[in-house]
Amino acid sequence: MRIIGIDPGLRSLGWGVIEARNGRLSHVANGQCKTEGRDLAMRLLSLHTQLSAVMAHYAPDAAAVEQTFVNRDGAGTLKLGQARGIALLVPAQAGLSVGEYAPNAVKKAVVGVGHADKKQVEHMVKLQLPGCAPAGPDAADALAIAICHSFHTATANRLAAAIGAGR
Amino acid sequence: MRIIGIDPGLRSLGWGVIEARNGRLSHVANGQCKTEGRDLAMRLLSLHTQLSAVMAHYAPDAAAVEQTFVNRDGAGTLKLGQARGIALLVPAQAGLSVGEYAPNAVKKAVVGVGHADKKQVEHMVKLQLPGCAPAGPDAADALAIAICHSFHTATANRLAAAIGAGR
Repeated sequence: MRIIGIDPGLRSLGWGVIEARNGRLSHVANGQCKTEGRDLAMRLLSLHTQLSAVMAHYAPDAAAVEQTFVNRDGAGTLKLGQARGIALLVPAQAGLSVGEYAPNAVKKAVVGVGHADKKQVEHMVKLQLPGCAPAGPDAADALAIAICHSFHTATANRLAAAIGAGR
Repeated sequence: MRIIGIDPGLRSLGWGVIEARNGRLSHVANGQCKTEGRDLAMRLLSLHTQLSAVMAHYAPDAAAVEQTFVNRDGAGTLKLGQARGIALLVPAQAGLSVGEYAPNAVKKAVVGVGHADKKQVEHMVKLQLPGCAPAGPDAADALAIAICHSFHTATANRLAAAIGAGR
């Protein structure tokens, strides 16, 4: 199964594609979609175009997006929300169901604890995906989200198989 | 000039299309794009599909979106942000530039004061667009946003003409 993980952001949206086969993970590609300027609609359009191109090129079977951290900075939350709308829309347009994971769940899946720092996450991502070189912190986060989704999907599949075998 | 106004929301996104010709406004159509359910990505996809259909059907020349009210409710702001991302993306995909107006600017343009209530806005919208029956409060707000944009565009055009004549 090929999985795309997405770490939404307006200035830089990270993405990472991995392959999960027989319990083994491998790196496919990663990158960051960047936008700048004052025209918000044009920036969202650019994000949509860039992410749609990634989607079309790597044709993942599943997608997962990080749940945005909601804080007291309303304007920041709104900006992130707008970018996140695009991050959720693009895989849905490709017919994929989209998993959502809180940052702590992603860290717990990849590092083993919920409160790891960014460097630790990047280190573990590199260990679990030999040969991958994240394009930046957002791309490393996106790969971590994809790894987290692969674990959750594998657990769900084992559970379904166990229930099926028990019948 | 045909203008679409959009009042973003995840549960209900209001839209209103008006025609501005020789300083006169007329109503073309209005409605609300509704979504429900727990799958956020599917709801955003549905908003995108519905609003794209409106866009293709009425082919407006300009678009305006209300600036979302940012409050202390981070989760609510995030939801609105995601819907707003779609509201900005769809007209940008159609090649339109998108005006953005704060709720107070919209009220001031339509009612004359920045702190009018919803009923007052709807009343003034009906007065300025004879024969229109808003599908709901979000549709009435969307028509108000379109009216606001027509005023701002007209002022900008007069200003440009005056500068041109003065040269």
